[in-house]
Amino acid sequence: MTDHSRSFCAAVDWGTSSFRLWLLDDEGTVIASSSSNEGMMHCAGTGFAPVLDAHLAKVGAPAGTPVLICGMAGARQGWLEAPYMEVPASLMALSAQAARVLDAEGDVRILPGLSLNDPQAPNAMRGEETQLLGAVGENGNALVCMPGTHSKWVKIENGTVTHFSSFMTGELFSLLTKHGILQHAIEADRAVSADDAAFLSALERTTAQAHAALSGLFGVRAAQLLGFEARADGAAHLSGLLIGGEISAARGLYGEGLEVTLIASHPVDALYRTALERQGFSVALKDAGEASRAGLFNSAKRIWSQ
Amino acid sequence: MTDHSRSFCAAVDWGTSSFRLWLLDDEGTVIASSSSNEGMMHCAGTGFAPVLDAHLAKVGAPAGTPVLICGMAGARQGWLEAPYMEVPASLMALSAQAARVLDAEGDVRILPGLSLNDPQAPNAMRGEETQLLGAVGENGNALVCMPGTHSKWVKIENGTVTHFSSFMTGELFSLLTKHGILQHAIEADRAVSADDAAFLSALERTTAQAHAALSGLFGVRAAQLLGFEARADGAAHLSGLLIGGEISAARGLYGEGLEVTLIASHPVDALYRTALERQGFSVALKDAGEASRAGLFNSAKRIWSQ
Repeated sequence: MTDHSRSFCAAVDWGTSSFRLWLLDDEGTVIASSSSNEGMMHCAGTGFAPVLDAHLAKVGAPAGTPVLICGMAGARQGWLEAPYMEVPASLMALSAQAARVLDAEGDVRILPGLSLNDPQAPNAMRGEETQLLGAVGENGNALVCMPGTHSKWVKIENGTVTHFSSFMTGELFSLLTKHGILQHAIEADRAVSADDAAFLSALERTTAQAHAALSGLFGVRAAQLLGFEARADGAAHLSGLLIGGEISAARGLYGEGLEVTLIASHPVDALYRTALERQGFSVALKDAGEASRAGLFNSAKRIWSQ
Repeated sequence: MTDHSRSFCAAVDWGTSSFRLWLLDDEGTVIASSSSNEGMMHCAGTGFAPVLDAHLAKVGAPAGTPVLICGMAGARQGWLEAPYMEVPASLMALSAQAARVLDAEGDVRILPGLSLNDPQAPNAMRGEETQLLGAVGENGNALVCMPGTHSKWVKIENGTVTHFSSFMTGELFSLLTKHGILQHAIEADRAVSADDAAFLSALERTTAQAHAALSGLFGVRAAQLLGFEARADGAAHLSGLLIGGEISAARGLYGEGLEVTLIASHPVDALYRTALERQGFSVALKDAGEASRAGLFNSAKRIWSQ
């Protein structure tokens, strides 16, 4: 039996379309957890407090358990805006910038996102900064790749985020497979594996030519029109182009032959590992969910254990 | 009054979503014309012959007027498949490869498309080959840019197409403005002009960095989140990234500082002219509709004037 009297805090990763809560003891061990698809989009209609309260009740959190949240709940259209910290930004300082939700019962705080206020390359993240803290630590040095709907590449020097960039890789895959001409060339729900020939062949082209992702997209269809590939190859071909194109662009931004900390979940972790290695990066893999939890716990300790 | 007794042929550009017919005399002068949105997609349900007959009647074509068609009506899912000519392919030879529609009244033929049967860069076009003949001629030399839903770049040597590539520039613009996160950052029906600051600034970034189209997409949203741009700038910003990215990739494929024959229509012609010139190309503009008509007429003369 779990011992709820040891509860130290509830850690919440509240994204655009997902909610994930862990009840943690003061060593960061998980006492209980709960998740759902009640993300920011859902809660914009129903309100945020009832969703949080229901999950706290579900995991049996003692009354008064403090709650630390990261992610889109802190966006302008979320529960309470937690203003961005501008890079260069110390990951250790996230906790001090947490926004306190005054209309919540108990102590509920939302960690800020990060912004890159460069008019030539403006950028923003919410949620990933917490994974960075969890995966890289307070004083780490790393180049980080975080695959997703909007993938992030992040440079961290001595615990400080100095630069980051975004790629709409996951969203482009989704748009191109659901709408437009390529939907006829792709089985949208087909799982892609890292050793698919069409995936590897597309990766190879993006490694050789930075522009292959753009100049090769129509080839997903043409390869089938001309009999070089079957419809079953479409998803792997497109994945290879988009993931390879992202990594090729990141090589242009951050350099060649580096070690990359890959913060990802199954099944995309295997595709990115292969793609990164093919383009000359060495890869240290960290699980995205564990990184969120560890980052939230680290920040919670700074807030409530002083 | 037009003199229908001088009718030489009907020239038809039958695309995916559009139909355009010109009744021509034997010098290629337009006697009458008709157009509608009865493209291949529409006719797949209703049949092709009735649509053609209705337009022939509308322009008053004398019985027995021969008809030459280019475009998607010749696709596998069209009226009758006109098999691709494989590049290298002579534009002068298109007419000899036209497929005769046997179930049509009178002499109706469909020009073939072109295919690039390279497993590493497979590609196909239907309709553009006819514009190329019309704009560049039987013995021309040119690097051609044809903006569109699926833009084409084509290398022509002495009237022979030796290479071409495709970019899904128009489709990406449409998908990104109608679905997904950027729809909130873009007024979809906002006209973009070639001197919009957000257009020019995005162009500049794609000129400097080939990967800017991919690494900069999310910046359309971030620029607004961080107050650098307004929603009114979104369409111009995205146009600049996608058009600039296409041209930057084409520079990688075909070389720097060349003259480009731009076959385009209003209003995209002005955007591409500016973007091409900013990346060091010199531009000779040809109207896309006139190019189709001239290419059809050239081929019709070869078929019916021997």
